[in-house]
Amino acid sequence: MERTELNILGEFGLIERIASQSQVHNSTTIKGIGDDAAVVVADQGYQLLSTELLIEGIHFDLSYVPLKHLGYKVVVVGISDVLAMNGIPKQITVSIGLSNRFSVEAVDELYSGIFAACEDYGIELVGGDTTSSRSGLILSVSAIGTVEKEKIAYRKGAKLNDIICVTGDLGAAYLGLQILEREKQVFLDAPEAQPLLAGHEYVLQRQLKPEARLDIIKQLSDLNIAPTSMIDVSDGLASELRHLAAESGLGVRIFEEQIPIHQKTYLAATELKLGPFTAALNGGEDYELLFTIRQEDYQKIMDHTTDISFIGFMSADPSEAFLITKQNEAIPLTAQGWEKSEDA
Amino acid sequence: MERTELNILGEFGLIERIASQSQVHNSTTIKGIGDDAAVVVADQGYQLLSTELLIEGIHFDLSYVPLKHLGYKVVVVGISDVLAMNGIPKQITVSIGLSNRFSVEAVDELYSGIFAACEDYGIELVGGDTTSSRSGLILSVSAIGTVEKEKIAYRKGAKLNDIICVTGDLGAAYLGLQILEREKQVFLDAPEAQPLLAGHEYVLQRQLKPEARLDIIKQLSDLNIAPTSMIDVSDGLASELRHLAAESGLGVRIFEEQIPIHQKTYLAATELKLGPFTAALNGGEDYELLFTIRQEDYQKIMDHTTDISFIGFMSADPSEAFLITKQNEAIPLTAQGWEKSEDA
Repeated sequence: MERTELNILGEFGLIERIASQSQVHNSTTIKGIGDDAAVVVADQGYQLLSTELLIEGIHFDLSYVPLKHLGYKVVVVGISDVLAMNGIPKQITVSIGLSNRFSVEAVDELYSGIFAACEDYGIELVGGDTTSSRSGLILSVSAIGTVEKEKIAYRKGAKLNDIICVTGDLGAAYLGLQILEREKQVFLDAPEAQPLLAGHEYVLQRQLKPEARLDIIKQLSDLNIAPTSMIDVSDGLASELRHLAAESGLGVRIFEEQIPIHQKTYLAATELKLGPFTAALNGGEDYELLFTIRQEDYQKIMDHTTDISFIGFMSADPSEAFLITKQNEAIPLTAQGWEKSEDA
Repeated sequence: MERTELNILGEFGLIERIASQSQVHNSTTIKGIGDDAAVVVADQGYQLLSTELLIEGIHFDLSYVPLKHLGYKVVVVGISDVLAMNGIPKQITVSIGLSNRFSVEAVDELYSGIFAACEDYGIELVGGDTTSSRSGLILSVSAIGTVEKEKIAYRKGAKLNDIICVTGDLGAAYLGLQILEREKQVFLDAPEAQPLLAGHEYVLQRQLKPEARLDIIKQLSDLNIAPTSMIDVSDGLASELRHLAAESGLGVRIFEEQIPIHQKTYLAATELKLGPFTAALNGGEDYELLFTIRQEDYQKIMDHTTDISFIGFMSADPSEAFLITKQNEAIPLTAQGWEKSEDA
């Protein structure tokens, strides 16, 4: 593959190269890359602003993460927090710290993923900062979006007996990471070995190219349902549930058998001798949405949406956060390792 | 000094500690730190969004930069780009990557500087991300602000014969950095030596605790003057002038004797055997504002403002960017090293 050194382009050349690929999808974007600040027109309602910092060696390992996938994932991670407020993401900025190990072609790969995600989610890259780094790749993403005032969903706001919902399925991204880590170790021990990834495409995809649930936000909007509270599942279901409970001053009860887990997640868990429910509860990086709805909205969601599971309800006692097992035992959600792996 | 390890607080504890110190100055801030995204109400007009990434070892050297000063400077760097659009900064987010070399007390110092700057500029910290880093301190700052549509100042927009203005004085921050680098080298060679900083307080302050020119933006607003183009001086006057010229499709002519240089900058330059004008033109980190005004606004600025210098004008030929020396020679602004240091 061709390799062009970054210093041939220079910082301004690099910015121009990125800017030339940026496409505008929102009429609210007045000026994107190329001035001191991006300029947008605010819609009616609230503006949302979120930001994430991703560091090589901490958040991603370039020995098995393709740069294009990383670019896509950075956008997903950035906009997921806007969605978690029931908002529609509109613009992002991406700042990048690059060591001279990266070529122009590598940067192009990264941005091809960023632009693919921008296209998929109807947003645009409006700015950022580029700088050198002595220690690998650093990515900082900020997202802005909008939400109608009466539809905003904070972490706080769930009411007693509200139904707890979660989108998609959980735990797959964590198991995808474990598969990748296993194969990396195999490669380090015996570089001639072929990676054993077959059959794990689903969990690998969930780790390498997660999707943000803009589709769900639009479905809820179409149904005129505003979640009473919401958060995105980035750190694992248990941690996010505790946030919703603490902020809303209530307890939570969820049911093990209602937790959505993909059959490929069970398969990977079995192979890795890990518990699929532990992965769902504590794995993280799912980027699904966890939210609460009023009981009267339940039927509407049942009838008109797919890919939303009802996993429990808000309870009165703020000190309780329980998982009700298939054996009808109540286990504190803080407990780790309660679940035995399939064949251990 | 007391040292508390960061892992005693944990990530959520750290976020709570930071959030508890945050004060709200703007009524447009609905929700700051503590949810998935910050929530703000958009004023009428345009919203501005800018972002900067600062990396230890590239942008700052903690062997001589106090953490409190660094915190202050991060905010200044962040909001300077909003000011450069003729906007008023309202909120910032700061994301931070920390290695375990940093204690809770060190993080407190950093944030004390961030909050001091927020207080001085009437803005609030509304969010961010905290993560671990294997390689020193990483800071990412995003700023949002607002500007009336008819008052926005892009880099593009200067007209023929518009007067080029610059605030404050230039070159001092660069010379402050050179003084600090010199004393670091002395210390490395002979740790028992006392640093020779006396007499250089001004240039050191300009490097370590620069100020963003919110005062100038307010003065211009009071006078009902909208600059025809504007940029902040972060990379040095020459580079910024070329941006304004290129974006506006015009040339620039500036006069050496009009470039504002502080007497303490001359002093430091003499001691370091560096050219003060070279520092002003190519040094950077001044965070002053460079802008153009229509000729008819000149007298109003002369009569009613201080700390603005008129350094030249926009010329017709887009291919020219000249500095007119005291000897009336026209020297291309791209030329480096044209200036002999005072005593070299």
